[in-house]
Amino acid sequence: MKERRETLIGKRVPRPDAYAKVTGAAQYTDDIVLPGMLHGAMLRSPLAHARIVRIDSARARRLPGVKCVITGQDVPAVRYGNWRLVPELQDETALAAEKVRFVGDEVAAVAAIDRDMALAALDLIDVEYEELPGVFSVAEALAPGAPAVHAEHEDNVSLVRKIDYGDVERAFAEADYVREDVFTTHPVSHAYMEPCSVVAQADRDGRVTVWTSTQTPYYVQCLLARTLGLRENDVRVVKPCVGGGFGGKMELRPWEFAAAWMARATGRPVKITLSREEELACGRRRHPVTITSKIGFKADGTITGKEVTARLDGGAYNGMGPTATFLIGNFGAMLYRFPSYRYDGVYVYTNNPPAGAMRGFGAPQALFAGETQLNLAARELGIDPFDLRMMNAMRPGDEIPGVATVGSCGLRECLEQVRALSDWDRRRARREPGEGLGLACYSFISGGVFNWFDTKYPFSSAEVKVFDDGTAQLTTLAADIGQGSDVVLAQILAEELGLQVADVRLVTGDTATCPQSDLGTWGSRVTLMAGNAVRAAAQQVKRRLFEIVSLKLDLNVIHELECGDGHVYAKSKPQRRIPFGEVVAMAQRANRGEPLKASGYYTPRDCGLVSPAFSFGAQVAGVKVDLETGGVGVTGMYTVHDCGTELNPMAVEGQLEGSIQMSLGYALSEELVMDAGRTLNTSLLDYKIPVAEDMPPSLSKTVATFEPAGPFGAKEAGEGLACPTAPAIAHAVLEATGFCCKDLPITPAKVLAHLAATDPERAG
Amino acid sequence: MKERRETLIGKRVPRPDAYAKVTGAAQYTDDIVLPGMLHGAMLRSPLAHARIVRIDSARARRLPGVKCVITGQDVPAVRYGNWRLVPELQDETALAAEKVRFVGDEVAAVAAIDRDMALAALDLIDVEYEELPGVFSVAEALAPGAPAVHAEHEDNVSLVRKIDYGDVERAFAEADYVREDVFTTHPVSHAYMEPCSVVAQADRDGRVTVWTSTQTPYYVQCLLARTLGLRENDVRVVKPCVGGGFGGKMELRPWEFAAAWMARATGRPVKITLSREEELACGRRRHPVTITSKIGFKADGTITGKEVTARLDGGAYNGMGPTATFLIGNFGAMLYRFPSYRYDGVYVYTNNPPAGAMRGFGAPQALFAGETQLNLAARELGIDPFDLRMMNAMRPGDEIPGVATVGSCGLRECLEQVRALSDWDRRRARREPGEGLGLACYSFISGGVFNWFDTKYPFSSAEVKVFDDGTAQLTTLAADIGQGSDVVLAQILAEELGLQVADVRLVTGDTATCPQSDLGTWGSRVTLMAGNAVRAAAQQVKRRLFEIVSLKLDLNVIHELECGDGHVYAKSKPQRRIPFGEVVAMAQRANRGEPLKASGYYTPRDCGLVSPAFSFGAQVAGVKVDLETGGVGVTGMYTVHDCGTELNPMAVEGQLEGSIQMSLGYALSEELVMDAGRTLNTSLLDYKIPVAEDMPPSLSKTVATFEPAGPFGAKEAGEGLACPTAPAIAHAVLEATGFCCKDLPITPAKVLAHLAATDPERAG
Repeated sequence: MKERRETLIGKRVPRPDAYAKVTGAAQYTDDIVLPGMLHGAMLRSPLAHARIVRIDSARARRLPGVKCVITGQDVPAVRYGNWRLVPELQDETALAAEKVRFVGDEVAAVAAIDRDMALAALDLIDVEYEELPGVFSVAEALAPGAPAVHAEHEDNVSLVRKIDYGDVERAFAEADYVREDVFTTHPVSHAYMEPCSVVAQADRDGRVTVWTSTQTPYYVQCLLARTLGLRENDVRVVKPCVGGGFGGKMELRPWEFAAAWMARATGRPVKITLSREEELACGRRRHPVTITSKIGFKADGTITGKEVTARLDGGAYNGMGPTATFLIGNFGAMLYRFPSYRYDGVYVYTNNPPAGAMRGFGAPQALFAGETQLNLAARELGIDPFDLRMMNAMRPGDEIPGVATVGSCGLRECLEQVRALSDWDRRRARREPGEGLGLACYSFISGGVFNWFDTKYPFSSAEVKVFDDGTAQLTTLAADIGQGSDVVLAQILAEELGLQVADVRLVTGDTATCPQSDLGTWGSRVTLMAGNAVRAAAQQVKRRLFEIVSLKLDLNVIHELECGDGHVYAKSKPQRRIPFGEVVAMAQRANRGEPLKASGYYTPRDCGLVSPAFSFGAQVAGVKVDLETGGVGVTGMYTVHDCGTELNPMAVEGQLEGSIQMSLGYALSEELVMDAGRTLNTSLLDYKIPVAEDMPPSLSKTVATFEPAGPFGAKEAGEGLACPTAPAIAHAVLEATGFCCKDLPITPAKVLAHLAATDPERAG
Repeated sequence: MKERRETLIGKRVPRPDAYAKVTGAAQYTDDIVLPGMLHGAMLRSPLAHARIVRIDSARARRLPGVKCVITGQDVPAVRYGNWRLVPELQDETALAAEKVRFVGDEVAAVAAIDRDMALAALDLIDVEYEELPGVFSVAEALAPGAPAVHAEHEDNVSLVRKIDYGDVERAFAEADYVREDVFTTHPVSHAYMEPCSVVAQADRDGRVTVWTSTQTPYYVQCLLARTLGLRENDVRVVKPCVGGGFGGKMELRPWEFAAAWMARATGRPVKITLSREEELACGRRRHPVTITSKIGFKADGTITGKEVTARLDGGAYNGMGPTATFLIGNFGAMLYRFPSYRYDGVYVYTNNPPAGAMRGFGAPQALFAGETQLNLAARELGIDPFDLRMMNAMRPGDEIPGVATVGSCGLRECLEQVRALSDWDRRRARREPGEGLGLACYSFISGGVFNWFDTKYPFSSAEVKVFDDGTAQLTTLAADIGQGSDVVLAQILAEELGLQVADVRLVTGDTATCPQSDLGTWGSRVTLMAGNAVRAAAQQVKRRLFEIVSLKLDLNVIHELECGDGHVYAKSKPQRRIPFGEVVAMAQRANRGEPLKASGYYTPRDCGLVSPAFSFGAQVAGVKVDLETGGVGVTGMYTVHDCGTELNPMAVEGQLEGSIQMSLGYALSEELVMDAGRTLNTSLLDYKIPVAEDMPPSLSKTVATFEPAGPFGAKEAGEGLACPTAPAIAHAVLEATGFCCKDLPITPAKVLAHLAATDPERAG
């Protein structure tokens, strides 16, 4: 009998929650109904910058059915923010007490017997503002004498991040070709399907339980406890099903505070659910960034050095901006070998709604600039853009100074294969007028290493219990917010224990019942970090199972044991085996009935400052530009990427499709249109996300690499993929029209303006 | 600085859930609302014994709004029952397939869009029965040629339990005085405030989550999985707040099965809540028992031996009857020194609604017989009933053959003190006509040792997590069903860790998130067993904390450490201390962030076959009998009891008050009136539980003993207390009127009949 162990790695395992989600049975936060529950709403500032002179909520309080009204003057002004490591960066309070800093800044909250009543009460709160001049762009904010958004930062600079290695001056001096470009990007919305929602319930003894649509239950627990003046574990955070986050749900939010506070004040549960209008008008968004990039090459195309400056329009508060400021610097020098590199990133306060983390976390902006510039350089150098990248591409073992040593890296394979997949050379040669092919690459992190939240716990934790019915349970705070991490973690556990995915049950999303702790979902960290924690726990369980089997089968000490096909067996004599559940029963009996369980943890150590592993990929976009309207039609997307071992190809494909959809919007149609701090397009009629019929045909492959830091060789998929699409389309438009759009999005108006400028007939 | 450690043991700590319960905020099963939830109802047999010829549910299925109808013919007839150790005793199926055996036997279930619709559908299910002759008493059931309730038991005997030690024949032969009496007890209802309710939800992958009003989530998990054909851990059972159980909610119930099955069939959650009428008409009840007791004494009052036979009217199924049959035998010989003892207990099937466990678990019946007989003997022997008991009373270290060696035992102290507390001698001497004082004692178990459920897990389990915010979390499946065990377990943990109760949070009642396992709430097991598990876990945590403090304070190895006042300190130098949370933080840091937690378990071992610890007590009742109406008025209750260390006197007092209230009903006013298997009084208007104004004045004390097997010396309180009241009242009535009522309840009719028989004037 030969060992024929079935593997689950690489299997297209469907998500266990898929059926409940598509049939409407899944319970999201807004589905929760508790006895006596009140409904709350937030009063938001109509002004971008103003001093609060007076708030009178007496009329609102008198409205029958209103049970609670709180203003910034009723609650302590505790500053919070995710950057607990640097408390000066914690610049937000749940309710504005003295000043509002953006249109939508939360000023008060109401809880009433129903939502209509709560909204009616908002109208009865009388706020007298003294309007202040505002700053609505980086340029305005940095201008001498500009009004200060925060008194502590007269220059409106919250944070400066610098990177400097090699000798950039010399690199440019010795280069045969140097160019400098300025790129600007725009604010876009996460546009997750589920608007934010929270339900809070308070015990008599002051303990609070909060169900909330979040990516990071642990952050909410810690920060909410602090703002409420409670001990960390007096707050219990439960994450029900979450309808997407994309970075937009990874902070404590004012409505979480308000619901919890009002639940404590009234003794009744309080629900607050945001409207789509609130989400678009005041919600977190991707940072608009102005990036100046200067790069030098030898005549043969070898990069000699690069210098990047980035100015982020952070809006009124830091949010996750400091991380984005750091990461733009890292992403600026990640894909290729840069012998020298200098980065100067500045996070600038303005009176726009605050930006935050959003899928890519700085990379979409950094790579739009970097990859577009590379394509421009290739044109100038007369080198095929593939060839230019191949010669400079990172390789396994490369060091990124001060960041990490790259483990697995399939960038060159991705380039080679996407060149073939897209039929680049033949199609580029034969293109029709208005047609173009564009290329861009990406590299991305698999979770962050830098402990900006200053957690005291492991970055990821898992508890595994095994049962004599042949099943296993995984308990973890790792947060599936729709990306499908639950099924991947179940696969990892099943694979490790030799079970089927249906044999694994997950208990997740509750700070009280899940092991401390997991940092949540962001930076493509879950598969690698929680996956490693799951394996660590499972391996401890296996050690115990192997003891039992060695004893029961009286195995020679030289035998290696393994779990597979629902059994524990000797690898070299696989017929010597015992069913998994029986081994568990024996282990339990041996331990006088005590259940068999183990905890596993993962914290990235000794792997630099940014990430334990890096993904890579290359993407080609085909476009056809309508030369009459300036409209850009994407005719095809070709992607080859390196996510290490593909644990679940169905999940990877889903990530790719979602990335293309989201990036298509970023490149061409989505933009939060601003007017002096006010967002003008606050419905999905005006804010144009691509729909199913906008999706181009797409071909994709992965290259086979094995990431030593990841579980079964896996690393991130889906966040890096959100980065190359915009520069690839920009490149294709350049190839099609000669117009290099350096200012996203690539609108028909911009294309037409270029065509007019270069075509004398249109100029008239 | 002297060690002045504050202790929580013996403190009147209020329950953390009290506020939520009295304000209506607490969530019971029927409060749960899930998206798309259906409402179910059970169709019950109108006949006590019949063959099911045909069930036609077609009309019910066609009723609009009806989503599911199941009958015994649609589901597998899996037998279940709590006595997994002896599978032949598992005699129930969720829905009757071929035969109904009692009025109320579940025949079908319906799930519909609302409860009215479900009830309407029940009327449309057409069941054709062939009625069979029934047996409605032990005598009928045991008569030759009686119809068999179960074909497998032609003699209607489900179980025989015998105990025999010493030489009973010789004991009676050598006795100076022997008497034999026959006692009969009646069926009563638990009458818990919350009727049974269940909500079931099924995942697409077949997993079922059940919220149910239960004392024993683990039993429901195991048995429900088996009846559904699922693996044990495919069933998750959650216990919300429970409004009382008293033994009536410790089995799998047909509605739990039906809700789960129909949730799986429809893909929608299903709720079934019983009506009070269903509860009274068909619910579990206390076993009616016929007890023949023969006892011999020396002339000085020394007991020489005792022989007891018990015939339990079990109704149609075993339920918890086998345990009651065993325990009546044990309780028959527990209070006093019986040099010889013989017991013959028979569990008899009838076509009455099945009986089950109910507060006392056989002891109320056994002690009504035993104590009443002792009082009769005292009269005949001319010995004061106190003196008779004092000379025969058990003492610490006594062995109960085949059962246990008694650890702590304060019975004699209880007798002495209640004699004084009730002013027995003076008041007895001066009583008015119609007045009487009566005495009875009890002994009870603190949890069961015999593993009739055949669990593979420890009997109780606890997980303790400690946090650097100075708090601790206890996770346990120990089930607070209103008795207040949660606060006691929190006290035990806080005491062990030197924290306040408010520093302890509990996570309970969920088989998926709580450690495996806890057998639930029955037999007064929670404080002792779960309490010991909590201590075991806490002690492991402390060991780690002590390591840290030894290291940080550089303590000499001879120092003992302790937790107290929120610190960890050296006992002999209490000023050398570190705050608890700081020690936790250091322990966590030392362990690279891993949280500090520990599991603790308790399984009674090497402590006989019945219980690790025994409680004792003595109670005096004062009555005034209305000689015109025969009505018995209870004028005072005096109780002195030995529950070991009183962990929480407020909780103990609550148990005493509840015991008196419930036993008052048992003695005087409560009775399920039966007519050929049909319960006639099915509302609380006709079934008379004592209300607040019926409660007599009461005085009580506890005696100070320390139970070595219990946490901090504690043992049971509240279930044994439910036993002496009826025999004490019976004794008082005897003293008042000369009438010894051997057939509960002591109704005015019975008293009047006696008065008439003994008073020629009334006879006319």
